[in-house]
Amino acid sequence: MRMYDIIQKKKRAGALTEAEINFVVQGLTTGSIPDYQISALLMAICLTGMDTAETTALTLAMAASGDQLDLTELPGIKVDKHSTGGVGDKTTLIVAPMVAALGVTVAKMSGRGLGHTGGTVDKLEGIPGFRTQLRIEEFFATVRQIGICVAGQSMALAPADKKIYALRDATATIESIPLIAASIMSKKLAAGADKILLDVKTGNGAFMKTPEEARALAQAMVAIGAGAGRETAALITDMSTPLGVGVGNILEIKESIDVLRGHGADDLRTVCIELAAHMLLLAEKGGLPACRQLAAEVLTNGKALEKFAEMVAAQGGDRACIDDPARFPVAAATRTVFSQTGGYVAAMDTEGIGMAAMMLGAGRETAEDEIDYTAGLTLLAKTGDRIEAGAPLATLHTNDETKLPAAEAKLLGCYTFAETPVQRPPLIY
Amino acid sequence: MRMYDIIQKKKRAGALTEAEINFVVQGLTTGSIPDYQISALLMAICLTGMDTAETTALTLAMAASGDQLDLTELPGIKVDKHSTGGVGDKTTLIVAPMVAALGVTVAKMSGRGLGHTGGTVDKLEGIPGFRTQLRIEEFFATVRQIGICVAGQSMALAPADKKIYALRDATATIESIPLIAASIMSKKLAAGADKILLDVKTGNGAFMKTPEEARALAQAMVAIGAGAGRETAALITDMSTPLGVGVGNILEIKESIDVLRGHGADDLRTVCIELAAHMLLLAEKGGLPACRQLAAEVLTNGKALEKFAEMVAAQGGDRACIDDPARFPVAAATRTVFSQTGGYVAAMDTEGIGMAAMMLGAGRETAEDEIDYTAGLTLLAKTGDRIEAGAPLATLHTNDETKLPAAEAKLLGCYTFAETPVQRPPLIY
Repeated sequence: MRMYDIIQKKKRAGALTEAEINFVVQGLTTGSIPDYQISALLMAICLTGMDTAETTALTLAMAASGDQLDLTELPGIKVDKHSTGGVGDKTTLIVAPMVAALGVTVAKMSGRGLGHTGGTVDKLEGIPGFRTQLRIEEFFATVRQIGICVAGQSMALAPADKKIYALRDATATIESIPLIAASIMSKKLAAGADKILLDVKTGNGAFMKTPEEARALAQAMVAIGAGAGRETAALITDMSTPLGVGVGNILEIKESIDVLRGHGADDLRTVCIELAAHMLLLAEKGGLPACRQLAAEVLTNGKALEKFAEMVAAQGGDRACIDDPARFPVAAATRTVFSQTGGYVAAMDTEGIGMAAMMLGAGRETAEDEIDYTAGLTLLAKTGDRIEAGAPLATLHTNDETKLPAAEAKLLGCYTFAETPVQRPPLIY
Repeated sequence: MRMYDIIQKKKRAGALTEAEINFVVQGLTTGSIPDYQISALLMAICLTGMDTAETTALTLAMAASGDQLDLTELPGIKVDKHSTGGVGDKTTLIVAPMVAALGVTVAKMSGRGLGHTGGTVDKLEGIPGFRTQLRIEEFFATVRQIGICVAGQSMALAPADKKIYALRDATATIESIPLIAASIMSKKLAAGADKILLDVKTGNGAFMKTPEEARALAQAMVAIGAGAGRETAALITDMSTPLGVGVGNILEIKESIDVLRGHGADDLRTVCIELAAHMLLLAEKGGLPACRQLAAEVLTNGKALEKFAEMVAAQGGDRACIDDPARFPVAAATRTVFSQTGGYVAAMDTEGIGMAAMMLGAGRETAEDEIDYTAGLTLLAKTGDRIEAGAPLATLHTNDETKLPAAEAKLLGCYTFAETPVQRPPLIY
């Protein structure tokens, strides 16, 4: 088998066989196929596509390129959840303890922030003492003891995906539904859950800008799950405005605690209940209406909050912060940003708001950057709201006050106003 | 400027600017752009194309990546000729002395064999003593003295083309009209001639299999020539059968001497007269009918042969071989291949015949292989001929008789027969 012939076949839009795909993934993992051949193949895939069988074979080969967690010894149906990433998307922090409180086993590996989007692992590390880098025995022991553990993804999971991702990132071959789907699903399959719920974000703050793209990605991933024998469901949810009001690590932890206490922003709570209900459905806890009711109840009866606090304590975090969020560190400098115009908020540049939070220190511009866990922003006006000129739009938080002017300017540029009432897009498609 | 953005633009079928193309060619020449980014761009170009302005800019940038010959101090209009490569294509050996004998200055750099096709430099090196690796002063002195010199292409001409070609060869991005056109024309522009005649081969022995592909390549190259201010013309000629009867280095030299003596195969002589006539036309030696007559005459009056012998002597070759071709070395072993069927030769697998000659030792399978200059084959039946079962098809020549059986089997498989008369395709389109 020759890499040349495989590239030639894909360039001519031929379907690669499982054997050819395995040859490619093994060759890139061992280094026997040079990067310049891999990147030519990736570009050909971007431009000529891959069918479901090819995408599934690629996903399985990438999942098999490193360690694969075996969760079978853990009790019950293990359900994983994955979000394609957004701004202010703290749903994992809320949904994971919700379903764990209802008896679903959650043994979850999460990622760090990428570009303008935040990552669950970074957010959890905003809790003083919280440890995300666990030995595999600790991870299993925690799940067995309290039914939940959320850890950072091991470097040994799907190394072929890391290599391919790095090349895609350098060669403008990120935008390809089959490659995105295979990348996400390879990590999910290697992480070992029985069933997977996907939260595919759409809108100007998501990687998939339109519902059509989001649907295509969701369908591709569900098909891979089916091909791999793992039941997979997907929700398509809105990311044309940030989810909830907090953007930034500790700000989002605090907002999550609010929701777990039965309060919080309506949009965030609604999406969390829907995601939790679908995880419960996958875990065979009843029909969808019953699952929705269970999910809503667990937010008001305190059991989800208690499970979250247990998890924080089990992973070395300061539980007192959960009981009393006033104990969390706060930023040294804050500034409220006021609107210069009045009217209805017609649209928000959600990616831009994520960038503004990053500029305040909440994210990394390069892999070496240190995160300021207290940094970020709290939104005081969102799409559809009617505000007067001079009313507050958001509060900025940072430990480096020199960052405030640029972030303020960035944030002001993210709002568009209209004179007539504006309808928000649906939360869930 | 970032390579990432350039790849992204081309992936989306955008037209690259001259500045972007210069950035790429400089980056690949200096090594500041890694191979995996170059190969991704090459694949995107293969699949989304390039327009004439882009292709011209790429050609000029590649031509400028190394030395560029300045032929202005040589007398007269310098006309170059390039063939896209075929089997038994010895036209340069004949046409160059023809036009030189008629006062056209020929200061020509030629290439080596590639795959199943032969190369002029390899053929010339079949003449005992002939030197193709000349210092630039020798090259100029020879042209000034006798009006003609055919040398091997300097490694310092268009190094960016060499780098791109090596990557294309490894990443299945050879088949791209703009990239092929830019590769050929960059070397022609760097070689400095005032005008260029292109012989674009078409048929199963050529890289362009159909007349439509050949026409597209010819048009692309003529457009580049125009864009670069070098008058360029192209002929599309047949390569659905080998040209003439000899395939292999010394066999082709001897056949060329035959034609220069006014004999030789009709198809070969016809194509040579047409190519020479178009070079004379470019050199402003008269209208096309007059040029055709001049070209035909120079083959019968001995002047082209004399010019060839002068060139051989000037480049260190044994002129006695030209005067008496029986002095050329001959292969230790020969074998005549007989047809097992009778009928009309309906078609010849011309690439296969080139491969058979290569198997006998006439070409290189890897860059390190040594050529057996005496090896090759002489065709005794070509498309359209009527033959009986048991009649000879070809004679094989080699210094390694163990190679004969496989080459014989290969050659036999290259002939297809029909029961009714068969028309050969046109020689010149």
